[in-house]
This record gives sequence, C-alpha cells and structure tokens, in this order.
Amino acid sequence: MPSISIKGREMPASPIRKLTPYADKAKQEGKHVYHLNIGQPDIETPQVMLDAIRHIDFKVWAYTPSEGTANYRARLSNYYNALGYGITARDILVTNGGSEAITIAMQACLNPGEEIIIPEPFYANYNGFACSAGITIKPILAHIDNGFALPPIAAFEELITAKTKAIAICNPNNPTGYLYSRQELEALRDLCLKHDLFLLSDEAYREFCYDGREFVSPMHLEGLEEHVVILDTVSKRYSACGARLGCMITKNKALWNAALKFAQARLSPPAVAQIAAEAALDTPQSYFDAVKEEYTARRNALVEGLNRIDGVYCPNPGGAFYVVARLPIDDGDRFCQWMLEHFSYNNATVMMAPASGFYSSPDAPKNEVRLAYVLNINDLEAALTCLQKGLEAYPGRQK
Amino acid sequence: MPSISIKGREMPASPIRKLTPYADKAKQEGKHVYHLNIGQPDIETPQVMLDAIRHIDFKVWAYTPSEGTANYRARLSNYYNALGYGITARDILVTNGGSEAITIAMQACLNPGEEIIIPEPFYANYNGFACSAGITIKPILAHIDNGFALPPIAAFEELITAKTKAIAICNPNNPTGYLYSRQELEALRDLCLKHDLFLLSDEAYREFCYDGREFVSPMHLEGLEEHVVILDTVSKRYSACGARLGCMITKNKALWNAALKFAQARLSPPAVAQIAAEAALDTPQSYFDAVKEEYTARRNALVEGLNRIDGVYCPNPGGAFYVVARLPIDDGDRFCQWMLEHFSYNNATVMMAPASGFYSSPDAPKNEVRLAYVLNINDLEAALTCLQKGLEAYPGRQK
Repeated sequence: MPSISIKGREMPASPIRKLTPYADKAKQEGKHVYHLNIGQPDIETPQVMLDAIRHIDFKVWAYTPSEGTANYRARLSNYYNALGYGITARDILVTNGGSEAITIAMQACLNPGEEIIIPEPFYANYNGFACSAGITIKPILAHIDNGFALPPIAAFEELITAKTKAIAICNPNNPTGYLYSRQELEALRDLCLKHDLFLLSDEAYREFCYDGREFVSPMHLEGLEEHVVILDTVSKRYSACGARLGCMITKNKALWNAALKFAQARLSPPAVAQIAAEAALDTPQSYFDAVKEEYTARRNALVEGLNRIDGVYCPNPGGAFYVVARLPIDDGDRFCQWMLEHFSYNNATVMMAPASGFYSSPDAPKNEVRLAYVLNINDLEAALTCLQKGLEAYPGRQK
Repeated sequence: MPSISIKGREMPASPIRKLTPYADKAKQEGKHVYHLNIGQPDIETPQVMLDAIRHIDFKVWAYTPSEGTANYRARLSNYYNALGYGITARDILVTNGGSEAITIAMQACLNPGEEIIIPEPFYANYNGFACSAGITIKPILAHIDNGFALPPIAAFEELITAKTKAIAICNPNNPTGYLYSRQELEALRDLCLKHDLFLLSDEAYREFCYDGREFVSPMHLEGLEEHVVILDTVSKRYSACGARLGCMITKNKALWNAALKFAQARLSPPAVAQIAAEAALDTPQSYFDAVKEEYTARRNALVEGLNRIDGVYCPNPGGAFYVVARLPIDDGDRFCQWMLEHFSYNNATVMMAPASGFYSSPDAPKNEVRLAYVLNINDLEAALTCLQKGLEAYPGRQK
C-alpha cells in the first residue's frame, strides 16, 4: 500500500467536524440537536437570485473567463463603489467561493515559508488555506474581556520578522462578531505602510453590522491602495453558500496579475452562480433590512440569554452572526462533546463549536465556545435553556 | 509598495493565454479567427441537465457536504459501476471541477517537494496545480512518431527516486488524443506496485473514444485498488465546462480521508451543479452516440486534412478532441503568433496552441502545435485551408 504521509503539509482537520459523529449519534438516539455550531443561515436566498437560476437561457454551459464574466464584474464593481471603495471592474477577480479568494490571496501575496499575522480566535479554515499555500500563520491573541478588540499594535510589531508579508483580519469577525473601528483600521494601515505589508480584509459578513454602527473597510483608507486585498463572498450576503462564488479585489495590478495565474490554472469560476449573483445585485433594500432586523433580535436574545446564565460571559458584538462566550467549564472540546453524547433536556441538546478550533496559541483560553445565531428566536430560547441545564449538570463545571 | 515576489512558487502563466492579445488584435482588425486552440466544445449541454437547473426548488441555496451530496454520489457511483469500476459512493469526493480534483489529489498524495512523473506533452495546467501543491513534475517524453504512445517503462524507472510518489496519465490524452491500451496500463500497474506509487488517471475525455476502441481505466486492473486515483469532470462528458463539477475517486480510505480535509477547508462544491449533474446521469445514449459520431467525423476531417498539407504530420488519435501535429516550421510559438499577427486568408486566420506549453523537457520538439476539433466540419475545412496557406507564406518555414 502506498504510504500516505501528508505530515509535511499537516493539513488540519476541521475542528467542528470532530463533533459530527457525536451529533449523528445523538440524532440516531432520537435527540433533537439545536445547531448553533455552523455558519449556514436559515434565511431565504433573495427571490431575484433564485429566479435568475430558473431562467437561464444558454444552450452550452460554457467556461467563463478565469477572472469572471465582464458583465458580473462590471455590475459588482458598482456595488462596491456604492460603498465608497473606488474600484474598477478590472480590480475584481471572481473566485470559487470566499475560500478560494483567501487561498489565492495567500498564494499570490506570500511565498511558501513566509508569514501572515492574524488576530485570533480566527476562522479555523484559514489554517487549511495557509497549509495549502505552504505559508505560516502567526496568531496574535485577542481577549474576550475587551470584546475581542484589535490587539495592541505593539503586539503585532513584536511578531514582525523578515518573513512577514501580510496581516489578515476578518471584519466583522468570524468567530467573535467583533466589528473593527475606523481607529483600529487606521492603526493597522500605519503598521502595514511602516513595514510594507499586505492587509487582507475578509469581509464575508459586511452586510451584518448592527445597532447602526459604521462598517469601515481598509478600502476606505487613503494611502493603502497598493496594500489592501479584499476577500468577499456572496454566501452570507444573499444566503447563497451553495453558489460557491466569491471574489478577491485589489488595486495593486502586479498582485492582481499574479492572482490571475492561479485563477487561470483552474480555468473558470461557476457560470450559473455568476448569472445569479449578478441578478442578486437587484435585491431590494427591504430584504437586507429584514435580515438585519432578524439577526439583531437573535443576537440580543442570545447574548442576553447567555449572560443571564450563571457563570457565563458573552460580549455583545457589532456584527456577523456569531458570538464567542466564556463558560464555567474545564474544557470546551470536552463540554461540547459531552452535551451531544451524555446530555439532553426535553429530549434535546445543543451543538456548539469549541473555540479551541479558532485558537492556536498555547496560552489560549480553554473555556470558550462559538455560537452561531442561525436559528429563529424560539429555537434560540429553547437552546439557551438546554445549555443552562447542561452547564448545571456538567461534571467538569468550574467555579 | 509591497514587494510582489512569487518567485518561490513560480506559478506558470497559461501558455495559450500568451496569444490572447494577438487574437484580440486580429479580431479588432476585422479578421475572423478559427479557434482551434481551446477545449471549450460547441456541443450543446444535454437538455435534462439544463432542465434540472430551471427546475431548482430550494429556498435556501445552502452548502452541500464537502464531499458532495449523498444523492449525487450514490447515483454517480452507479455510472462508474456500469463501467466496471466496482466502487461505492463513499469512494467519491465531489470537487470544484476536474481542476480541483487534480489539485487535491496532488496535495493529498504528495508532500511538498516530492515528485510525480507525467508523460509529456501533458495538459499545461498540471504545472499550475503542481506549483500550487508545492510538488515537482518529472516529465517523460512521448513521441509523435509512434503517436505519443506510453514511453518505455525503463524510461520511467530511470526517473524514479526516493522522492517519487506518483505517476499521472491523462487518458484519452489531452493534448495528444492518445488512448492508452490495456497492455500499457498493465505495464504501469506493475511499475506502480513495484515502487509503491500512486497512479493518477485523469479521465476527463473518457466518453470520447473512437473507432470502436476499448477504454481501459486503471480501475479495471486488479491489484491496484489502493494505488489508483481517478480524476474526472462533467465538463466534457456533458459539455458543461461552466458547471465546475468534478470528482476524485479512490478506494484507498486513508487517501480519501486526507483528501477530504482539503475539501472541508473550502466547505462545499457548487450546489446547483450537483443537482444538474445528477440529472445529467439520465442523458440518453443517443446524445453520446451523436456526439461521438460528430467528433469522429471532425477528427477524420482534421487528421486527413492535416496530413494532406505538404510537410505536416499528424497521428490519428483514438480519443479526446485534440491532436498534436508536426508542422514544417522553425518554432510553434512564433508560428502561432505570426498566424494571428501577420497572416490572413479570405480575411480569416487560425488560432492554435503551440505544443511548447505542453512540454517541459529541454529536448522537446519545437515544431508541434495542438489543434482542438471543437468546430463544425465546414469551419474545420476552412481553417485547414487557411493553415495550409499560412504554412506556405510563413517566413520561418522549414524543409
């Protein structure tokens, strides 16, 4: 038998997936599982987008240009310019989901062996993309006690070496929901200019900012034009995760051209998704208003509910649809597995993502979990009660 | 400005694309360009597939499982088992096109720095995938004079080192159209077993075998179950290149599990494409019969027409929809560019792919081009006349 040794690559398994067998078993045993572990929204995809799929009129399902269709890129640039990004269609590279946008950006910005600094906790799949690209992530701890705000710039500077090529942020943040302020982004701008670093900004959750707070992108900041790389996707904006359509945006032509070579190797992004995503640009504002209202209500219910539970602390984040909460437990991995394997209340249990999968520093906290508010309020309330009862019964409870 | 240095990765630009600006210019000048350079078929996508897109009935365009939907994998396994592959749905990993299948297979089978042997000329994007995966391709020359048959096994053995982990073939071959015989595949089997190597078999053109010739896959050979990796796509089978749907198949569970980790990092293959590709499995045999008849006629017209031109030699390949021809010229790159830039006949010219992009050995021939027969016979005949006139006028003509 051939030797399967992917040691050199050490592709990490998805941390949430480790729990899947326990969730499957719980369901087989007849338990209802409240899924607060995933980023698949229950929100309906805009009708204009679904209609566009149903009205395709091509006879040959052909490749599109590697960088995306001219039509889609042109109309998409209008969307970004309405946000004040000041880009052209030529700055956009359409990708197979946000995942590929991040992978290509890492491949084009960094040589194998070079380093990117990312505040943690961070989206666990960054580890996989970095592994694929052969680059190294240098994590920098953000803390729950200040709501996972940007770590001090001095802490970034300590990590910068000759190998450092980029900093990446996810804004609003997955997993913490933290929304970076203009001041924080300006501090990052100054740092990137000082050390000549790329700034990758993953903005998958841009549409999900609450309480009237301002969304600021590095694209809004002057002086950073050659350094900013925006990573985006239609997955969350239009609840169209299965479209697998994202994009990478940069005004840096040399970087865009380098990225295009990676895009050309895989020929084309999906064609129907581009037709649908172009139509999605006509989604009425009322759709986004309703979605935002719904998520705000869910976030409020979840955050207030969590903080009402004895020993639990959860900051109130400004965006996305996740929170990271601190629980009175010994270990998040153990607790999340225990909830699936050994606990039920009213014949139900809760599946959460242990925050360990979003951290890599050895001194990261062990007692945090990520919860996604992708369920309706009634289910969220029931899940909160279930979590409360679980925490009361958990043998590894602390304090 | 950040320093853009992707030297370490040396991602190669697509060789065909170098000619695109010259083709664009020719068109601006009012010339008609016969595109024999690309693999985008003009054949219509099966009606059942297009109908499936038009009848999608989901409300939320959601992620599918990273390995593909259970329905699609189950029905797809039936397709392979009708071919005698003896697989289960669990052996299939659904991917973003054949491109991702190849990339993931390279990433999962080889560590960075390890080597894969591939007969050349080979599909140019293999260079890009290998570059992305951080692995090295060791080319082994096949020759036009025996129709690009498999090079002698002894030549493979000379290239095998401690770093060699796999051999890859494309069957029927892109760019040569060569269809490997059972005997050749058995020789490769023995070699792979002797040296414990994976055998990657890119079968994108499986449906395109002519003259009643038998298609043999390594999956048909006994003893190789743990070593074979099939790479496939719906792009050519159903003329659905824009679906971006492929798959990797292996009975080796450890390898499949390693590949799954790469698939999990990018979350999901496209959802609508899986629905359509499942429906495509009901494509009537008459569709494939008609397509095969059309391609056979085109191949015959092209190969006979090429060999009628003074100084041109073109083998008659058993499959795919490409040929590689030897022309009486100094240099394929120069000639292909000259045809676009400086030549026209009846206000038209021909765009071909210089074979240089499919070779990497320093001793590779310089006077070959790849032609795809993706045009109807009338256009092919006109293109042949144009090529003949071009060869007569070309300043770098040899012999």
